[in-house]
Amino acid sequence: MPRPERQVLVCVNARPPGNPKGSCAEKDSPSLFDAMKNLVREQGLGERVMVNRTYCLKHCSRGPVFAIQPDNVWYQGVTQGDLEEICSSHLQQGRPLERLLMPDIPWE
Amino acid sequence: MPRPERQVLVCVNARPPGNPKGSCAEKDSPSLFDAMKNLVREQGLGERVMVNRTYCLKHCSRGPVFAIQPDNVWYQGVTQGDLEEICSSHLQQGRPLERLLMPDIPWE
Repeated sequence: MPRPERQVLVCVNARPPGNPKGSCAEKDSPSLFDAMKNLVREQGLGERVMVNRTYCLKHCSRGPVFAIQPDNVWYQGVTQGDLEEICSSHLQQGRPLERLLMPDIPWE
Repeated sequence: MPRPERQVLVCVNARPPGNPKGSCAEKDSPSLFDAMKNLVREQGLGERVMVNRTYCLKHCSRGPVFAIQPDNVWYQGVTQGDLEEICSSHLQQGRPLERLLMPDIPWE
C-alpha cells in the first residue's frame, strides 16, 4: 500500500467559543471526518484514499473545509449530505464537485 | 491569494507515552512545524506555500512525517537539519529530496 492515490484533508480545528474566526470543529467537522472515513472504507477505497484530520486550513469563515490532494481541490461549507457525492464523483471518478469549490480568497 | 502552490503537511499527532505506535509529536514534530512555517515566510514563500499541522499521517514508525502536496511526495524521519533543503530544493525549485523519501510501505 504505497502513497495514497488521493488524500482527503478534513479541517477539525477548534477555537474557544466566541472567537471571531470561528472554526471548522464548531461546524461539525469532526463528525464529517468520521463519516468520510467510514464511507471511503464502505466504497472500497480504503487502500487508495487516505482520510486525514488537520488543524487550521486557513479558510475558517468558509468551513467546514476539505482539501483533496494531489488534485489541489478545495471545498467550502461541506455537509453530511455532500459526502456521498464527493466519494462517488471526485474520489471514484476524478470529477470534482463544482458547486462546493472554494473561491480564490485570501488565506485567513 | 488563491489555492496554495504547495501545501506542506506536518504530522504533529501525539499518543500517550508507552503507546507501541509511538507518534510524530514525541519526535519533536511540533518544533519542526514552527520552524518550517518561519522558514517559508523568511524565504518569501509565505503567499505560495501553506504549512499545515495534521493528525496521524499513518506512517508512525517512520516519523516525523511530512507530505508535500500536490506533488504527493512523502518524507520520513525529517529533522531540523533537513528543513532548509526542503525549502530551497523542493519548495523553491520543485526538486524533491531523494534521501528523505518514504518507501512504499503499508499504512499504519
